[in-house]
Amino acid sequence: MTDNKVGSSHDTAGTRPLTLLGLGAMGAALGHAWLAAGYPLTVWNRTPGRAEPLAAQGAQVAGTAAEAVAANRLVVVCLLNDDTLGETLDGVDLAGKDLVNLTTSTPGQARVRAEWARERGARFLDGGIMAVPPMIGAPGSGASVFYSGSRALFDAHAEALAVPAGTAYVGEDPGFAALHDVALLSAMYGMFAGVAHAFALIRKEEIPPKDFAPLLSGWLTAMTSSVHQAAAQLESGDYTKNVVSNLAMQVAGSETLLGTAEEQGVSAELLTPYLALMERRLAEGHGDEDTTGLIDLLVRRTGR
Amino acid sequence: MTDNKVGSSHDTAGTRPLTLLGLGAMGAALGHAWLAAGYPLTVWNRTPGRAEPLAAQGAQVAGTAAEAVAANRLVVVCLLNDDTLGETLDGVDLAGKDLVNLTTSTPGQARVRAEWARERGARFLDGGIMAVPPMIGAPGSGASVFYSGSRALFDAHAEALAVPAGTAYVGEDPGFAALHDVALLSAMYGMFAGVAHAFALIRKEEIPPKDFAPLLSGWLTAMTSSVHQAAAQLESGDYTKNVVSNLAMQVAGSETLLGTAEEQGVSAELLTPYLALMERRLAEGHGDEDTTGLIDLLVRRTGR
Repeated sequence: MTDNKVGSSHDTAGTRPLTLLGLGAMGAALGHAWLAAGYPLTVWNRTPGRAEPLAAQGAQVAGTAAEAVAANRLVVVCLLNDDTLGETLDGVDLAGKDLVNLTTSTPGQARVRAEWARERGARFLDGGIMAVPPMIGAPGSGASVFYSGSRALFDAHAEALAVPAGTAYVGEDPGFAALHDVALLSAMYGMFAGVAHAFALIRKEEIPPKDFAPLLSGWLTAMTSSVHQAAAQLESGDYTKNVVSNLAMQVAGSETLLGTAEEQGVSAELLTPYLALMERRLAEGHGDEDTTGLIDLLVRRTGR
Repeated sequence: MTDNKVGSSHDTAGTRPLTLLGLGAMGAALGHAWLAAGYPLTVWNRTPGRAEPLAAQGAQVAGTAAEAVAANRLVVVCLLNDDTLGETLDGVDLAGKDLVNLTTSTPGQARVRAEWARERGARFLDGGIMAVPPMIGAPGSGASVFYSGSRALFDAHAEALAVPAGTAYVGEDPGFAALHDVALLSAMYGMFAGVAHAFALIRKEEIPPKDFAPLLSGWLTAMTSSVHQAAAQLESGDYTKNVVSNLAMQVAGSETLLGTAEEQGVSAELLTPYLALMERRLAEGHGDEDTTGLIDLLVRRTGR
């Protein structure tokens, strides 16, 4: 097994070479970002044609995944899913490698993959990308990547990792990056569901969507403060603290929300599960709380 | 019927008297705001005791709703619901009055109430309050009220109406204020549902909610830009324009979201209705769109 220390004398910051496996839309965007920043890059893709635009920019194209991995210590993997990763790296020598996994995974898959990498003598860092490909390598796009796993790996390659997107290290547990990624994406779909319902309500009215949009985005932005309120309540364990609109009042108000959906001919299917959860928490005697207690209703009592 | 013009010589801006019916938490907050701003105020509440704190601040307390209405041209009503409003003003002379209804209503109720007011010789403005009582009369709290109905009434009393909260006039249709109010509240509950799911995912992990909160609120704030994208697509009718993550990709990714919920022991009940709608739209052949088309799936084809 090779020396795990990095930063030997011939490496200069910003030009340390790396390998990239997987050139789908996201992989290709990552590759272009590193090449544009002057990083020597070796690439491999199952379908070789996908490598051509990167080769034209100066990337070395490896004939096999094993060859690509052998070329550099830092190996970034961005494949279709965890199964594809397993197949691609099956039998490939990973000893002494710094493996950064940007393949979309569940936290559990990332944890198993970290153990798998450790057994093969590689350091392992999992990443969850909070961006779509056009945001990669575009300063100010807001693209960021959650990383978790080996802190030493993260620190050793901090500059290279910061090239395609902002970085946030969220813990040694290799599942935490995926967990943060999925938690934020799930929250986003909740917001999208609310936005869809809101636009549906005005769909047949003489209200231009472009006039309504700034009201809606301004309101939702203001309401994100509720996230901090929920966090404070979760940490204190007291869900009745600083309540400004209690559950009893909110459940009473839901009649107007459902009545309006009915009047406007809009299905309430995206709204009712949350309202039902509010009613359940209220029925359990928590009318003086706000909505933080609903979180606990979602978590199975017999967790892991 | 009295002259509908307002602003006679003895009225000076900021001191024009008004009447307020209903002193629940919201009504009381409104009353305190007008008194603090120097507006002569006549109040009435079914339970007289609720008027005492306002009387101590200088409010006139009327013995009956009819007496309170008779006292001033501008009459603001903030009662429990539309039925209570109907009972309270049954038989009361409204001729020549400027009636501002801040009672929580559906758009349909507001439209019927506007016609009811017109038949009684009153101008009518409906309002939807986007705030909780502690935000009322507090500059910088972000409290605002949507108004719709009589533009003349809104303009005539613009200064008084701006005292408790910011104002936004959203159209002559008396249902539009309630519609805006309900649409924004419904969207908020969608976001809350997403936030609840996200916190549930990390509930049993060593991730402090206060560390997670700024990541979550920052991400959601960034994602509100999707509202403008949806509005532009709705107006153009082309839901494939400027798509950065298409429905086919998003549906493929939902497996990771559901798998993570399962691993973390979290019920996906708040997430699945939206994912199901994405699948339905995809199955209908719209894999090259993003999520705007889901709005149309919510609206009944045989609308009002």
